[in-house]
Amino acid sequence: AIAEAIFRHLAPRATPLAGRHALVTAGPTHEPIDPVRYLANRSSGRQGYEIAGALAALGARVTLVSGPVDLPAPPGVALRRVETASQMLAACRDALPADIAVCAAAVADWRVAQEATRKIKKAQGAPPPVLALVPNPDILAELSTPGPDRPALVVGFAAETDSVAQHAAAKRARKGCDWIVANDVRPETGIMGGMENEVILITADGAEQWPRMDKRAVATHLAGRIAAFFTAQRSIA
Amino acid sequence: AIAEAIFRHLAPRATPLAGRHALVTAGPTHEPIDPVRYLANRSSGRQGYEIAGALAALGARVTLVSGPVDLPAPPGVALRRVETASQMLAACRDALPADIAVCAAAVADWRVAQEATRKIKKAQGAPPPVLALVPNPDILAELSTPGPDRPALVVGFAAETDSVAQHAAAKRARKGCDWIVANDVRPETGIMGGMENEVILITADGAEQWPRMDKRAVATHLAGRIAAFFTAQRSIA
Repeated sequence: AIAEAIFRHLAPRATPLAGRHALVTAGPTHEPIDPVRYLANRSSGRQGYEIAGALAALGARVTLVSGPVDLPAPPGVALRRVETASQMLAACRDALPADIAVCAAAVADWRVAQEATRKIKKAQGAPPPVLALVPNPDILAELSTPGPDRPALVVGFAAETDSVAQHAAAKRARKGCDWIVANDVRPETGIMGGMENEVILITADGAEQWPRMDKRAVATHLAGRIAAFFTAQRSIA
Repeated sequence: AIAEAIFRHLAPRATPLAGRHALVTAGPTHEPIDPVRYLANRSSGRQGYEIAGALAALGARVTLVSGPVDLPAPPGVALRRVETASQMLAACRDALPADIAVCAAAVADWRVAQEATRKIKKAQGAPPPVLALVPNPDILAELSTPGPDRPALVVGFAAETDSVAQHAAAKRARKGCDWIVANDVRPETGIMGGMENEVILITADGAEQWPRMDKRAVATHLAGRIAAFFTAQRSIA
């Protein structure tokens, strides 16, 4: 930490995000059905944790709001652990204001309408229960909504299994975020749960296919692009 | 391993389960809804892994069929990793014959009727999907069914949130297993996901409340009781 402080002092240009606050979400959410059952989304959390670490390495103050995964907080990152989408939204609101929001979490779109406080019993011969679902809060859309607390740059993620670039571009427009990092999570790609990622970056200028690389390299590239966005803003001002 | 072999040779009475094959299931199952979503049961897998290790320490050959958890195989235990209840049943059938079956896994009672091969899209303004469920195979009941492959001792687990002993005794009768290890998994007990357990052992002779102890101690006690069951059988024969 001392070495890092000296390094930052000697090489201020290596910390282009100094003075910026970045909010990053990562991991899945778990939506309880009863005390022993839940609905979940697949997400290792690795890509979000790497992005949090890469932004911190560029000098940003980073708050990482993470669903249930078993990863250590990257150096210099403040970690807030949550379980459900509602808790994740609350933790994000608490973390504002932020200059940057990167929503890498795989938030469950739905939760069960009524969480049972006791374990639902399997009745002999009775038909299985039907799970009535209700929509979860849309964290990316809420963070993207214009207003005094909107981060200057909001980046969403889109995990798709078909028509990746089209679905992602439509998502960017629908959510009102600035960029979308899209990837193809069909099981045969091995990306979900794996160490590598192959993404398309969707911005107002169009779609940019990045080569397949490990998740740390994707994070470093993305953090570099984010730093360039703020450096460009600074030069204009 | 050499030291262990010498020890076993010198102290045969320390391995009362030598020559016995134990099948242990552990962990949750994950039942896919689509490529990114699934239904799950809460289970750390710790109790089952400890039981597998304790049985191996008493000389048994142990096959551990485990749902998705991030725990290492205990020493001397053959680990088979699975994800769904159907895969767990298949792995259990493959492991037979066995003298002992300990079903510590938290198997999902239901899976979705039709797994989607593409990610289910959240349609704007459309109501959330309704998840139609179908029953999963009942692994404990199947292993308990009389027949040439039935293990001599079948032990089930019951995670309950109310009327623990009554629900567990009813489960023992319904499944046809020999013993049930029952515990109270209400969130306020801290047992689910924690390091300790407080169990009631249900046998043909009635219910026996064990004091709260760590999961390793529960495993050691249970393995000791299992060894005593087989030693008694041997003396009779």
